[in-house]
Amino acid sequence: MPGPQRDAERTQRRILEAAARAIATKGVGVSLDAIARSAGVSKGGLMHHFPSRDELLTALMGDLLAQFDEAVTAALDPADDAPGRLTRAYVRAVFADLENGERAREQITVMGMIGSDPGVTALVRDDDARWHQRILADGLDPLRAEVITKAADGATGSLLWSRQDPRELDALRDTLLALTRDPGALVEPAR
Amino acid sequence: MPGPQRDAERTQRRILEAAARAIATKGVGVSLDAIARSAGVSKGGLMHHFPSRDELLTALMGDLLAQFDEAVTAALDPADDAPGRLTRAYVRAVFADLENGERAREQITVMGMIGSDPGVTALVRDDDARWHQRILADGLDPLRAEVITKAADGATGSLLWSRQDPRELDALRDTLLALTRDPGALVEPAR
Repeated sequence: MPGPQRDAERTQRRILEAAARAIATKGVGVSLDAIARSAGVSKGGLMHHFPSRDELLTALMGDLLAQFDEAVTAALDPADDAPGRLTRAYVRAVFADLENGERAREQITVMGMIGSDPGVTALVRDDDARWHQRILADGLDPLRAEVITKAADGATGSLLWSRQDPRELDALRDTLLALTRDPGALVEPAR
Repeated sequence: MPGPQRDAERTQRRILEAAARAIATKGVGVSLDAIARSAGVSKGGLMHHFPSRDELLTALMGDLLAQFDEAVTAALDPADDAPGRLTRAYVRAVFADLENGERAREQITVMGMIGSDPGVTALVRDDDARWHQRILADGLDPLRAEVITKAADGATGSLLWSRQDPRELDALRDTLLALTRDPGALVEPAR
């Protein structure tokens, strides 16, 4: 990659990280000026990379969602080719985040804060639909997969409210992983 | 209740509802002036009831948490005295919220937005710990109860991103309710 393009990417990354930090500490209404200052660029420099507030927030959400994707990919076990492989990686990635402390807390806070921004909602909805399809294709009964992934999602609340005992989180993670080992229905179909 | 006290409670309720609406639409940084205006009171009138921004946000979170408590109580089945009774009411209350559309979406958005406010976090953490204890006392295996309630919590994300097919939400709710009917371990203990 040529030097100028690499420089541009570095600047964009610095702006996105400054934006996440600023939003997490000062709220979603933080000014672009404050974000630019904290990234060490001029406001004009920020607007060169992200021409509007909406584009900055959308790029930030895209970046956070991409980081989660990468974390799931990294958590895939190459030796595991049984049904539920992706669901296991999803659970591992969420709980690894939960153990990551401040950085993950900042990411989840920011996703919650900007996720209801109209420009960002469509992006999140598409990402959610894409994950839903990926998990459905993972070879588990759909409702089993849904319970497991939703329980992992719900556990992220613990990170924000920081009540949960780490041993309890480990036990929950291990239970969810064990639940992925049986591909069948989690409960008998209703009569 | 004497008239003046009832009037004060009405005014407080109007302010809290205006605050929720303003925060959901304009962000957590919305001014107290704007909230007062939208509640039809002067800023002095707002400050008489809620002397600081922190006190207003804490009262708002307390009100939202109390509304959830009331929803769970209302969802208790008087004829049900089997283990898991409270967990079933919790699941029913969360999914009733999910079907409630705009109002529930506003409440969940606001809880997410103000939950990381330092003054509010302690309140949420205490409420979370209290729910944890109540669910643990509900007669189900603790990890079973944890998976069920966390999956219900995780499903609230669907409301915000609004992807989920209502029939899929019904199926998830029914699966979680069915899971409360067996008090034992959800998975075999690890060897």
